[in-house]
Amino acid sequence: MQALVLERKGELSLRDMQLDEPLGPHDVRIALHTVGICGSDVHYYTHGAIGPFVVREPMVLGHEASGKVIEVGAEVTDLQVGDRVCMEPGIPDPNGRATRLGIYNLDPAVRFWATPPIHGVLRPEVVHPAAFTFKLPDSVSYAEGAMVEPLAVGVHAATKAQIKPGDVAVVTGAGPIGMVTALSALAGGCSRVIITDVQQPKLDLAATLGAITPVNVAEQSLVEVVNEMTDNWGADIVFECSGNAKVAAAAFQPLCPGGTVIFVGMPVEPITYDITYAATKEARVQHIFRYAHVYPRALSLMGSGQLDVKPLITDTFAFADSVEAFDFAVEMPPTSVKAQIELDG
Amino acid sequence: MQALVLERKGELSLRDMQLDEPLGPHDVRIALHTVGICGSDVHYYTHGAIGPFVVREPMVLGHEASGKVIEVGAEVTDLQVGDRVCMEPGIPDPNGRATRLGIYNLDPAVRFWATPPIHGVLRPEVVHPAAFTFKLPDSVSYAEGAMVEPLAVGVHAATKAQIKPGDVAVVTGAGPIGMVTALSALAGGCSRVIITDVQQPKLDLAATLGAITPVNVAEQSLVEVVNEMTDNWGADIVFECSGNAKVAAAAFQPLCPGGTVIFVGMPVEPITYDITYAATKEARVQHIFRYAHVYPRALSLMGSGQLDVKPLITDTFAFADSVEAFDFAVEMPPTSVKAQIELDG
Amino acid sequence: MQALVLERKGELSLRDMQLDEPLGPHDVRIALHTVGICGSDVHYYTHGAIGPFVVREPMVLGHEASGKVIEVGAEVTDLQVGDRVCMEPGIPDPNGRATRLGIYNLDPAVRFWATPPIHGVLRPEVVHPAAFTFKLPDSVSYAEGAMVEPLAVGVHAATKAQIKPGDVAVVTGAGPIGMVTALSALAGGCSRVIITDVQQPKLDLAATLGAITPVNVAEQSLVEVVNEMTDNWGADIVFECSGNAKVAAAAFQPLCPGGTVIFVGMPVEPITYDITYAATKEARVQHIFRYAHVYPRALSLMGSGQLDVKPLITDTFAFADSVEAFDFAVEMPPTSVKAQIELDG
Amino acid sequence: MQALVLERKGELSLRDMQLDEPLGPHDVRIALHTVGICGSDVHYYTHGAIGPFVVREPMVLGHEASGKVIEVGAEVTDLQVGDRVCMEPGIPDPNGRATRLGIYNLDPAVRFWATPPIHGVLRPEVVHPAAFTFKLPDSVSYAEGAMVEPLAVGVHAATKAQIKPGDVAVVTGAGPIGMVTALSALAGGCSRVIITDVQQPKLDLAATLGAITPVNVAEQSLVEVVNEMTDNWGADIVFECSGNAKVAAAAFQPLCPGGTVIFVGMPVEPITYDITYAATKEARVQHIFRYAHVYPRALSLMGSGQLDVKPLITDTFAFADSVEAFDFAVEMPPTSVKAQIELDG
Repeated sequence: MQALVLERKGELSLRDMQLDEPLGPHDVRIALHTVGICGSDVHYYTHGAIGPFVVREPMVLGHEASGKVIEVGAEVTDLQVGDRVCMEPGIPDPNGRATRLGIYNLDPAVRFWATPPIHGVLRPEVVHPAAFTFKLPDSVSYAEGAMVEPLAVGVHAATKAQIKPGDVAVVTGAGPIGMVTALSALAGGCSRVIITDVQQPKLDLAATLGAITPVNVAEQSLVEVVNEMTDNWGADIVFECSGNAKVAAAAFQPLCPGGTVIFVGMPVEPITYDITYAATKEARVQHIFRYAHVYPRALSLMGSGQLDVKPLITDTFAFADSVEAFDFAVEMPPTSVKAQIELDG
Repeated sequence: MQALVLERKGELSLRDMQLDEPLGPHDVRIALHTVGICGSDVHYYTHGAIGPFVVREPMVLGHEASGKVIEVGAEVTDLQVGDRVCMEPGIPDPNGRATRLGIYNLDPAVRFWATPPIHGVLRPEVVHPAAFTFKLPDSVSYAEGAMVEPLAVGVHAATKAQIKPGDVAVVTGAGPIGMVTALSALAGGCSRVIITDVQQPKLDLAATLGAITPVNVAEQSLVEVVNEMTDNWGADIVFECSGNAKVAAAAFQPLCPGGTVIFVGMPVEPITYDITYAATKEARVQHIFRYAHVYPRALSLMGSGQLDVKPLITDTFAFADSVEAFDFAVEMPPTSVKAQIELDG
Repeated sequence: MQALVLERKGELSLRDMQLDEPLGPHDVRIALHTVGICGSDVHYYTHGAIGPFVVREPMVLGHEASGKVIEVGAEVTDLQVGDRVCMEPGIPDPNGRATRLGIYNLDPAVRFWATPPIHGVLRPEVVHPAAFTFKLPDSVSYAEGAMVEPLAVGVHAATKAQIKPGDVAVVTGAGPIGMVTALSALAGGCSRVIITDVQQPKLDLAATLGAITPVNVAEQSLVEVVNEMTDNWGADIVFECSGNAKVAAAAFQPLCPGGTVIFVGMPVEPITYDITYAATKEARVQHIFRYAHVYPRALSLMGSGQLDVKPLITDTFAFADSVEAFDFAVEMPPTSVKAQIELDG
Repeated sequence: MQALVLERKGELSLRDMQLDEPLGPHDVRIALHTVGICGSDVHYYTHGAIGPFVVREPMVLGHEASGKVIEVGAEVTDLQVGDRVCMEPGIPDPNGRATRLGIYNLDPAVRFWATPPIHGVLRPEVVHPAAFTFKLPDSVSYAEGAMVEPLAVGVHAATKAQIKPGDVAVVTGAGPIGMVTALSALAGGCSRVIITDVQQPKLDLAATLGAITPVNVAEQSLVEVVNEMTDNWGADIVFECSGNAKVAAAAFQPLCPGGTVIFVGMPVEPITYDITYAATKEARVQHIFRYAHVYPRALSLMGSGQLDVKPLITDTFAFADSVEAFDFAVEMPPTSVKAQIELDG
């Protein structure tokens, strides 16, 4: 079948690739419809590796995907041919200890699309376990369905944050993950989100998405804004989404006594961390790794209208223009958030 | 001063009453603006008592209140004359064990407005601790401010429910408390609320308030609706707000495995409770008593637009018409939710 | 193989039975060593059924078991021939939603030993999934290993109770489940357990097990004892283990404000439940169904000496005397707690 | 009265000091019996300051105290003359926001004994709020009562850790705080504690205190020991008690997926913190600041025998020898854990 193949670092081709996949009894076969481009896809393209994961053989890219069920395994009962679906890209070992505990995102044996050596889904078809394939509500489009993967990171962060209704949150960094985290925090109970960045167009877009206060930290002090909005108490939750080591190190400053810091972004290098300062606030910190059990939650929030990702889908390309789409994503303008590729537009 | 006095069961009068209150160093004096009529006010009027609380002396009614600060105590730093505010009606003993633990709503020595022998606030002025007096955001009107008291019950219930983003909730009973609980559940992270009642006008109003599915249980099976909406999994949370013993006994039926039942309503008689059935779902149950620490949360949600109580304020009366207002509240039509009295309209 | 077969209500025989079980790649074959007699085994013997579970075909009894691994499946890596082990008797459907969430005890498709139509393990051998088979620490005997199953109920209850160090707990009912729950509450962080019963020999035994205060409720008021021990504050946690409807209905009385009631016992009939009373304490209630993920915890506590079940093993029978053992268990004297059968003594 | 006064950095004198304290209605007057020497007392002696807290005026030292009530305020109901008690050394502002929320340890206005400019209690008498004065159980001696203050740090850490019964914990650092944290972790539900240090005498003492495995990290790899004890899964909880920046930075290495790190120690300088590594385990981190609401819990555990601090009290001095006691504490041998001064021996 035709697929977008990363041949090696810096070289993409849309070409035929043999990907025969048998259908197991608990699997479904899906015709892909829409696949979003993630920063990790772009990073494999530009660098050929992410940390220990190195592209050594040609690999199909893409893991933010929606599509239509075209075949179902013998023991699949809750999906049928024609169902519009989206898919979790990571499949854990069902016999792993973390999986059995329900924290399957932490299973070290997980197989994740477009993470070497596992192929991604910028291709017409894929076979996938039914248990990790989710029906889209009627009101949710394929394009929105392909947004569930990045959104799931935000919903997972909001879930682990244990938001209390009315909490005030800070989100540092207004990239795609910062945006979906801000939306998830609001849908998850926050009364207001203060979002930071240094790129004004991103902040301008964020400000249109709901009860979100943009703060351009090149011009304003985050701590001053938070203190003014909270009577000097501080923010209940800080979601660090910039992945910048300095921003991450400063995450405790706008925090209230007893507050929570969620590290969503992952700085390349270690950060400088002041335990004594964090102690005076008796801060709780929660680290996040991908997501588990949140696809149904994300879809439910989208289906009921409580959370709307449509404003984040800024650029759409045809499958035939996939290489062009990736080159666009490499040099993404600050007015864009998410680019997607339609295989069946 | 002029006050709405419950002279005895069934007899209300708007008349002068001596209520001199000294201003302590941590207190403020407030000119009342709006006071909502609660079911408990009406019950004292019609029955002269609620359980062990019996009206033995003439008592001023009213505890859902907003107003303006007109004098501040010597050590008050966070409020000033002219501030628009609303007030928590219950003041706990600062030296009580429950108070010190932060669960001041459970302090047995709490003094609560319009609960015998404590006077309520259907009168021009009241002295109140600054710590239980909260500034209204600019976008929140006095009428909305007077809704914070009943809303606080819903926000407290939603807080104790420990909602995860995307949870599906059932609210049984579409009275005022059911309505504010439904709004709180949505603002607190639920993707959808299924609300039940047998009065269609209440359900029709509820359906206009957001992602709320009305179920008239005189015509439809709640369990069937929930099962269809959740692929036979069940609702994550059931908020029992009817106060009806039979409805409360059935609260576990629409619940999912591992789900939570919040008993908000308080049936007069004990209910029939099937432990074995609840065990098969390993249900968690949380009982609720008033609220603690939620006024700032409720105001923050209202101020940011995440939660809107305005559609629930259906009837407004002048202070001079207070007795008429109460007689209206006794025979509240199903199209009404909340009646309020304006002292300074 | 030779097995203890419940032929029909009231009729037990130790006789040959064909039970050929193939060994799957993730399974182990175990030679049984010790099997405890549970109240449910006895109930099937005397009544032929428990609720909807009716014995229609001859069924092998026994589900509290330990033994030795004698064969391992091809993909089993963490067990080997010769390992001393105990086993969880319930195997959930790995593809069920509850299983995937980590709450496999709530999977409706679970297959549980000695629950019709699934055979139990009063027989020489059984094939079992390695994932539900657990190595005994060197210091834990086979007899103790066979106690892990009932102990797991107590440890699960103590886990769900979310004990804070120093909590005071009440355990109502000093039968085997009350005993293991009391031990689990102490090992799980309680400073003291107050245990109730009307049979003095059980209370006398309980009092020897640690910081346990026995209360014979035929002679003393539980509430008075608790109030005296807690400065009238109440117990932090009440574990209801009697399964008696009246005792269960009174579970909230000794509870402190904000406390937790765990319903471990399952009364046959519904109980009378006073929501308004429970509300004044803002009680949390947690229902319990068997256990999940607690075998390793129970074994770890036993292995390190933090929890000792040996005093509860009061009576031991040879496999050849199994029918006699069951007849003893039917008329268990109050000085006995747990009877076990040794297959390889 | 006679008091141990830190005149200035490096200069202690036992001399008369005027400390007239009026008795408020909610206060008690206490004759001190035993006062432990804390590392912070010693640090004020040797350095004249701890961070921003500088000794500018002569200050009485000592904050780990027990004694006897000799006078009670007019409104005190739960204490009486003759009661044996211990006291929390920090008194928060009752009108502070953190205090009202129940997290009074985070109140920035807290007044804490022997923290400049507040005098400590190495003197015959002190007036203290009854609410922060706790009766000793009959079985708890004055010496043990004076251990409750350091123990409270450990119990608070164990409480915030949300231990599940059977958890395996690591405690890094076998100083006094590491020791009380290890005891608290065991009393709070852990099955086993692995404690580390480089001083063998401390480890030898720790090994006698219960299910505690000592690891001399100068000779052994902590990660290897943990992996062997947990089948390569990792420890559920790591309590970092060394206050050493390198040890703190390595706290995530022995941790299991989904585990918790509690930072109890406070390194002087910021640490190096690897977010990406912590993310792969989706670690939870909890910072700790002193304690709140744990004195009754600590006393209850000691009173019932679930936790025994007596082996930690290694050295006792008479009040007249206070200066000598401090000089001993400055050069504490590794075989000593806690030195105390008896005012009424």
